[in-house]
Amino acid sequence: MTEPDRRTGPSVRAIPEGDNRERMICAECGYILYDNPKIVVGSVVRWGDKVLLCRRSIEPRRGFWTLPAGYLELNESTSAGARREAWEEARATIEIEGLLAIYDIPRLSQVQLVYRARLVDPAVEPGPESLEVGLFGWDEIPWDDIAFPSVRWALHHEREAQATGDLAARIGLPPGLPPGPAAPQGL
Amino acid sequence: MTEPDRRTGPSVRAIPEGDNRERMICAECGYILYDNPKIVVGSVVRWGDKVLLCRRSIEPRRGFWTLPAGYLELNESTSAGARREAWEEARATIEIEGLLAIYDIPRLSQVQLVYRARLVDPAVEPGPESLEVGLFGWDEIPWDDIAFPSVRWALHHEREAQATGDLAARIGLPPGLPPGPAAPQGL
Repeated sequence: MTEPDRRTGPSVRAIPEGDNRERMICAECGYILYDNPKIVVGSVVRWGDKVLLCRRSIEPRRGFWTLPAGYLELNESTSAGARREAWEEARATIEIEGLLAIYDIPRLSQVQLVYRARLVDPAVEPGPESLEVGLFGWDEIPWDDIAFPSVRWALHHEREAQATGDLAARIGLPPGLPPGPAAPQGL
Repeated sequence: MTEPDRRTGPSVRAIPEGDNRERMICAECGYILYDNPKIVVGSVVRWGDKVLLCRRSIEPRRGFWTLPAGYLELNESTSAGARREAWEEARATIEIEGLLAIYDIPRLSQVQLVYRARLVDPAVEPGPESLEVGLFGWDEIPWDDIAFPSVRWALHHEREAQATGDLAARIGLPPGLPPGPAAPQGL
């Protein structure tokens, strides 16, 4: 199809009848956009005592390392979304074990759900959104080249869960870690 | 503002340039709707060995009992959303303790996040979306008049968490419980 005119669409802020919050409305056709927070699903994937990381081939944070993660699609369960992202970004087949953490990023209207997972087969390779992928022991993790703060949070939370055996889902960042700049997009 | 014409807005299904999935597009103005799954936040709120339930004053399922829960708003954390819903529906001030469960309802593109919470003060009363509110022991719960299957799942999961001390977040419905018809909307 032809390139749409992106200046149109819901661009007027007003409270629709019967509502109590401002919504974005299209001045041309009257369409009301009920915008909602977005869900990012991802996983900390273990193979023995190593974890899977992907070096991003796309912006934002091209060249930096991240967990396999991305936006949940319509009609997709959160665990299916986490498995899909692991496949898309690292050709990894994973088995979900439980929920590691919820990271709320209200500034971006984003909720990140990070699962704990096990790699079924260590033969991983970069998908189209990755420059390279790899399995890293704790001391091999490229800490200076991590893409987003929540990647660091999740790695610390997973290590803590392993060390303590406490598998309750973490909410918010680990104690002692700086929040850092909020992730610009996704994990 | 005047009532918008609801036949307009994104109503044509097509794959935008540079995308790989069909999206809904407005034939009049070209606006592309990147629709996303919606997040419902709620809580199982305890006061001693009783739990808080609200009898719905609105459709769907008017007159049936539910947990305080609703859609997460933009720029809101999930725990703040759960606290807001408890206040709106039952004038309840709650303290969040942890995440009880994630219920994926992919047919509705909905993810329900249910927290475990403690009532700070037992003086609750119905908000505008409730006919009545109450605190119920396990045997007092109006099981035949529960609004949505996931309310039943959450009550069973909370009872199991209390009994076993296992606080890992539950994913999907409890073993032994029938899925039932999917919740028509919200919890």
